[in-house]
Amino acid sequence: MINLDRLLGDLEELSGIGRLPSGGLTRQAFSPAELEARAWFQAKARAAGLAVRVDQAGNIFGRLGGAGPAVLTGSHLDTIEAGGAYDGALGVLAGLECLRTMQERGIGLDHPVEVVAFSDEEERFLGFLGSLALTGRLGPADLDRAADESGLPLTQAMTRAGLDPARIREAARPAAEIKAFVELHVEQGPILDRAGVSVGLVDLVKGNYRFGLTLTGRRDHAGSPMAGRRDPMLPAVAIITRIKDRFDGLSDDQALMTVGLLKADPGIENVIPGSVYFTVDFRAVQAELLPHLEGELERAAAGEAAAAGVGLVIRPLLKIDPVRFDRGILGVAAEAAREAGVEYLTLPSGAGHDAQVMGQYVPSAMIFAPSRAGRSHCPEEETSPGDVGLCAEVLLRTLIRLARKFYEDRQKVKMKNK
Amino acid sequence: MINLDRLLGDLEELSGIGRLPSGGLTRQAFSPAELEARAWFQAKARAAGLAVRVDQAGNIFGRLGGAGPAVLTGSHLDTIEAGGAYDGALGVLAGLECLRTMQERGIGLDHPVEVVAFSDEEERFLGFLGSLALTGRLGPADLDRAADESGLPLTQAMTRAGLDPARIREAARPAAEIKAFVELHVEQGPILDRAGVSVGLVDLVKGNYRFGLTLTGRRDHAGSPMAGRRDPMLPAVAIITRIKDRFDGLSDDQALMTVGLLKADPGIENVIPGSVYFTVDFRAVQAELLPHLEGELERAAAGEAAAAGVGLVIRPLLKIDPVRFDRGILGVAAEAAREAGVEYLTLPSGAGHDAQVMGQYVPSAMIFAPSRAGRSHCPEEETSPGDVGLCAEVLLRTLIRLARKFYEDRQKVKMKNK
Repeated sequence: MINLDRLLGDLEELSGIGRLPSGGLTRQAFSPAELEARAWFQAKARAAGLAVRVDQAGNIFGRLGGAGPAVLTGSHLDTIEAGGAYDGALGVLAGLECLRTMQERGIGLDHPVEVVAFSDEEERFLGFLGSLALTGRLGPADLDRAADESGLPLTQAMTRAGLDPARIREAARPAAEIKAFVELHVEQGPILDRAGVSVGLVDLVKGNYRFGLTLTGRRDHAGSPMAGRRDPMLPAVAIITRIKDRFDGLSDDQALMTVGLLKADPGIENVIPGSVYFTVDFRAVQAELLPHLEGELERAAAGEAAAAGVGLVIRPLLKIDPVRFDRGILGVAAEAAREAGVEYLTLPSGAGHDAQVMGQYVPSAMIFAPSRAGRSHCPEEETSPGDVGLCAEVLLRTLIRLARKFYEDRQKVKMKNK
Repeated sequence: MINLDRLLGDLEELSGIGRLPSGGLTRQAFSPAELEARAWFQAKARAAGLAVRVDQAGNIFGRLGGAGPAVLTGSHLDTIEAGGAYDGALGVLAGLECLRTMQERGIGLDHPVEVVAFSDEEERFLGFLGSLALTGRLGPADLDRAADESGLPLTQAMTRAGLDPARIREAARPAAEIKAFVELHVEQGPILDRAGVSVGLVDLVKGNYRFGLTLTGRRDHAGSPMAGRRDPMLPAVAIITRIKDRFDGLSDDQALMTVGLLKADPGIENVIPGSVYFTVDFRAVQAELLPHLEGELERAAAGEAAAAGVGLVIRPLLKIDPVRFDRGILGVAAEAAREAGVEYLTLPSGAGHDAQVMGQYVPSAMIFAPSRAGRSHCPEEETSPGDVGLCAEVLLRTLIRLARKFYEDRQKVKMKNK
């Protein structure tokens, strides 16, 4: 029922904003390219006849329908550096297409429906800025502390974008205003692609603990004797090895481990580094596994640092427990997929999403679209046009069901009969 | 006999050129600070009555005496980024002080004596640029290939400094022109400091093999399953661990290993790196150990890369075999130390120096001054004023012996009687 050509055209148009010569996209939160994308999206939403509103977090809402609790869908417009054209963009533009379709076809709804583009999902400054603000979890002090890698304060970037960081609390919405939230997003992994299935229903987002470790030794010449060195590189490598060995006994379903960043200072070939900084990212389905891994990391790091005579500081960068999505919405989405004649797969998400923030506040769920070869956060990120269409179709039917009293009442009866 | 106050004053003055607010020194080859240091040194040498000449490699020579094979001493004026005030500078300024003393005291010599400040010892561009050019080992094509970390071509830096890279071969001097080369340098290690000895006689420079390893995997999101990943970070860590384990069985006298640089690209906390680059620096006294370690590195790297399904490129960055210094000069220096009543220690050098390049071309040796706590290549680098004086004194007496026929003839008799 959606207009696939129009949706693909929108994706194509948006992918031109922030495009790099290499083919990737850099549209980081509050950058000139992202501000251009925001303006473009607002114009599109207005042209679709939606009531457009921007809150003090920079979240953009396009609303269809009158008063009352809204069914919300959407994702984010920002990308990482040299990211792809589908992560975030697909959910926002498919949401817009669903609302346009409802509007054009005059589909009768009992609840208003809104599409949202959340701010700074990709952590240029804070990560999940938009959804955290909407769910009332951010105050001005949180914004004051945030800066990007170059040191640019978030508050400055927001002010330049016409927002008032001191008024961030105005972006909070009462939970009662939002009946449900459904986010369509690309899978950041290969499960759907390998299975050859076009639609994923996400039952949970894995928990994510992340740590930054600094080992401080003594900078010295590479010609100095091994015995007297306080070299932070070798214990850093030993810590990673010990944690990696621990992971050899775990299945993918249980936990993931990534060292994405390791930096030696000064980082000169013939100089023993004065310090080494690296990050460890853990993800797991079971909530209890994450504190357990944290404990193992602390023990390994303390042991290796002491043995090498180097200083150790472990800073927790992220502690997000696993979030289970709403069974009711997942049931509605499964029904929508069956009605559309589309095969689906239920799977967990290894990546973090705004829906996991929303899911701790209002009934929420996610729909995943396949990524070719499981690639994401890179220029090669791609979802086939056919899959884009099928996912948008399932999203449309899910939103319609969530916005109609008929299905709501039926759901109540079902729950009662259980 | 040398004027220690004058020498310490020179060291103090020179350490003001390129000084950082942090206390360290950045005077990288052909940088504005280094060019200022060169001009300052030339003025000092002229004021001392030396004949000053700059060759097409940028080497600065100050000469005392007439024609014939010269006794050469000196070191370099350039530093690494945020290095110290003694590495290089001590050898150049102590050499200048020795020539000034000879000149002032009218010490009769049979050979000319020269002090040299070699170009780009610290490898901003090429490493040992000055000594390699002097020993005839550089042509214009070698210079064309060299650039600093920021990509600035060496040829451009040289041209800006008034040199003509196309004429680099003019910097070569026949071996017969140089009777001997003696370099005074700080020890880049703690042996003299720990032993409480003020003068080191260096019998050899350890060989130095250095490799750059690039592991190329597939950039991906940190939420993607462990099983399908091609993560270059974990095999990089495993390679370092394997080589490090090999070193646990070697003594310091045998070999040294340093990983000074490790970089993940893109280096983002929640992104599996697309590639990892790191360097491994090996140093050893025995020439045969270095190719052996190279073989072990190649095997470990190939094995780990294959197991992780990532690409591997190993690039040799440096292959310098151990260089043994001239026994005759070392005997003369030992005699000079005994005459001056100074205790000395014979030791190898773990660090590379211009003297090792010179040593493959003309009879050469080195004198080491102690570094406080063995620290060098850092702002804390320091040699005590007393040790500066004793080392300069031994250098002076060594140069005088080398420049007089009396000692030369006696040496011949000694050799004959053996």
